[in-house]
Amino acid sequence: MRFNIVVILFFFLSLSSLAQDHKTDSLTMRAIYDEVLVNGEAYENLRYLCKDIGNRLSGSKNAQKAVDWSFELMKSYKFDKVWLQEVMVPNWKRGNIEECFIEDEDGNKTQLSITALGGTIGTDGILEASVIEVNSLEDLQSRDRKEIEGKIVFISHAFDQRLISTGQAYGVCGSIRYHGAAEASYKGAVGVIVRSLSSIDDDFAHTGSMSYRDSIPKIPAVAVSVEGSNYLSKLLMERDQVMSLELNCETHADTISYNVIADITGSEHPEKVMVVGGHLDSWDIGEGAHDDGAGIVQSLEVLRVFKALDIKPKHTLRCVFYMNEENGTRGARKYAAWAKENEDEIPWVAIESDIGGFTPRGFSIKADDIYYEAILEWMDLFRPYYSNLLVKGWGGVDIGKLEDQGTVLIGYLPDTQRYFDLHHSGNDVFENVNKRELQLGAAAMTSLLYLIDTHGLPELIKD
Amino acid sequence: MRFNIVVILFFFLSLSSLAQDHKTDSLTMRAIYDEVLVNGEAYENLRYLCKDIGNRLSGSKNAQKAVDWSFELMKSYKFDKVWLQEVMVPNWKRGNIEECFIEDEDGNKTQLSITALGGTIGTDGILEASVIEVNSLEDLQSRDRKEIEGKIVFISHAFDQRLISTGQAYGVCGSIRYHGAAEASYKGAVGVIVRSLSSIDDDFAHTGSMSYRDSIPKIPAVAVSVEGSNYLSKLLMERDQVMSLELNCETHADTISYNVIADITGSEHPEKVMVVGGHLDSWDIGEGAHDDGAGIVQSLEVLRVFKALDIKPKHTLRCVFYMNEENGTRGARKYAAWAKENEDEIPWVAIESDIGGFTPRGFSIKADDIYYEAILEWMDLFRPYYSNLLVKGWGGVDIGKLEDQGTVLIGYLPDTQRYFDLHHSGNDVFENVNKRELQLGAAAMTSLLYLIDTHGLPELIKD
Repeated sequence: MRFNIVVILFFFLSLSSLAQDHKTDSLTMRAIYDEVLVNGEAYENLRYLCKDIGNRLSGSKNAQKAVDWSFELMKSYKFDKVWLQEVMVPNWKRGNIEECFIEDEDGNKTQLSITALGGTIGTDGILEASVIEVNSLEDLQSRDRKEIEGKIVFISHAFDQRLISTGQAYGVCGSIRYHGAAEASYKGAVGVIVRSLSSIDDDFAHTGSMSYRDSIPKIPAVAVSVEGSNYLSKLLMERDQVMSLELNCETHADTISYNVIADITGSEHPEKVMVVGGHLDSWDIGEGAHDDGAGIVQSLEVLRVFKALDIKPKHTLRCVFYMNEENGTRGARKYAAWAKENEDEIPWVAIESDIGGFTPRGFSIKADDIYYEAILEWMDLFRPYYSNLLVKGWGGVDIGKLEDQGTVLIGYLPDTQRYFDLHHSGNDVFENVNKRELQLGAAAMTSLLYLIDTHGLPELIKD
Repeated sequence: MRFNIVVILFFFLSLSSLAQDHKTDSLTMRAIYDEVLVNGEAYENLRYLCKDIGNRLSGSKNAQKAVDWSFELMKSYKFDKVWLQEVMVPNWKRGNIEECFIEDEDGNKTQLSITALGGTIGTDGILEASVIEVNSLEDLQSRDRKEIEGKIVFISHAFDQRLISTGQAYGVCGSIRYHGAAEASYKGAVGVIVRSLSSIDDDFAHTGSMSYRDSIPKIPAVAVSVEGSNYLSKLLMERDQVMSLELNCETHADTISYNVIADITGSEHPEKVMVVGGHLDSWDIGEGAHDDGAGIVQSLEVLRVFKALDIKPKHTLRCVFYMNEENGTRGARKYAAWAKENEDEIPWVAIESDIGGFTPRGFSIKADDIYYEAILEWMDLFRPYYSNLLVKGWGGVDIGKLEDQGTVLIGYLPDTQRYFDLHHSGNDVFENVNKRELQLGAAAMTSLLYLIDTHGLPELIKD
């Protein structure tokens, strides 16, 4: 009987302590959301980054300006430590010529809206050749060399609108953009033009990374807008077309750049680091507003809010602005290598925001199930903020470099329906970021880090 | 023993039949989403409504154009029945003068971005008066008559950014807009100017409905943009200000308009009607793209998809474009009164889409809990489409008129973070509607109606 009473008392105490925890957490989260929604600085920081600096490809003057601005901004918040981590980055320049014309049999020229893919060689004057359309890499691979040789290959694979997660559709098209030049060149093509990876029919061309293979000649590679792509397909159904293409891109020697990093030192476990971040670089068209200006201003906002609300994290809370996610992930690789060399610096948890500053859905986790389940326990706290979706499978490109070090990887998950409308295009500008949507993401990220810091995560016993 | 076997068999059969149902539902929903995302017509219909017709206040020529277009469009889809339901609507005209200036002591004038509130009287020439700022209706009510008399009252209550559901913040401000003129006039004011009900700081003024009280003199009422409101508050902190206001609005006699209605006749229960709809009218600034162009093209898409996929509803599926939601709800009242007179026409279920064409969250239900619980059973089917939020409490303004007839009222629930940035303003234009977000809403609405039609809803036994 006595035993029973003890058990029952213990049970009630546990419940009451759990309820108390839940209430404290809930109140703290409300305070976090209030701070972000009323006094938030992420939106004005993003405005400065987009409008006063602009896009910032690795190796560019703007990228250096962004590093300087980030460093000064972090220092202005008086975090415990702000520092730069040197990293060598690729240094590709688009140049100032980017033209593509289709000429009909009467000599009438139509200009197509294109953008050089990041890393492509130039055309060394005007490249003129017949165009051949293929629908996919498999289609290209199945063609006779004779069909392809001496031509510009147009890969017209469309974004699959049926996929609800637009990232899935992007994945398929991304492979075409990345491997198209090498695959086309392998068959003897002199250039490649890919349909933009875009979820919307407009005239913006979308750039992105591409690659060459050592043994295969390098050929110029561009993306054409969806409207341009549709127009070109229509023309090609009628008759053969000659395309003229001119680019003066150049690849220079690698250059010095930096990850920009700020810490709030942990009050109990300063040696245990929680990382939150995004990437500071962007493509060199548009303003890199969603990709990934949003992610870095949200990450910085996390630290600002901890400080503003006087929440002293038990573990060191670190904000990392990674350099060079877009065309090399050199910043993330550097950070991961450095952490590996200095074991204390391996983050036990890392959150990344790099899917745009859209209205929140929740988080995506790449880690052992016990972490997923532990975080799932908290997701009801996110329900009032419509941010309670927790899925497995993806952390982020930059934090992904930490995967083999056992870090719990968490991707902030906004709604993705509009992301690929503007991703990597001239349309990724500040005006297309909504203040409240951006802020709600920052508040969700802050809240999750507060919960992880306060309650910890289970210890994973490896077999 | 034998009994046990029967029970177990029955149990397995039930489970298997449930699983089968679930699988069929899941496959049908996937077909619905594919149809909408690949062949959807809602977006192009919305483009026509916004760009070729434009805004369409009740009683305007554009409203009649919208009725004609809707009628012909519904007929073009060859539904079983397409008809017009006559309804008398208010006929307020904004006029072509809408000016508001603040004049400083040196005689310098600054123009403020304003919009007349729907239903206001004009100023009969230029109205010039001192401005007094109050923060709320309560603040206004607490003032001495002497303070207010002869002045233009400026009610500067700001949108509460802390509320996660923007509709809640709108509710508070909406009351100020609706009652401000009567409350100010009661204290002797000669005009009222309210801060726009907007979640964003920009220079668009947001209109909306307002009211007078019979025993109190009518005074002119306008909304000022958030930027204008902030500027005015700043000026008023420095010194008294004189405002000049000119409007030439007029209220004409009620005029004839129409609800536009299309039916697919039910194959088993033609007398049991399921309604889906939105409102065809809009305010007379912007294009009424989200409010509520989105809602009507989504509703029409529901019927188009049933037909395109050859899903023959067991119950009659009816699409209603209500007239005059914005300033009178006469269309909804007419429909409800007609249904009451013709008992067979009382819908057993009604879905409304009138919170914008943003990315879906789920549905909101105003009905007895047994309906909520029945619908909740299906929400896992909406999980892959990120549309599985089911909340209680709200159906919609138009279907709300059916409440006393026992109709199960369901509001389509998109994300609301951006809605009040543009609601009732010149910024509510087609360009601000995203195609995929609009389509996903139509697919969610179609799916829910498919499930309700296929499986029915519980019978509510009234005490």
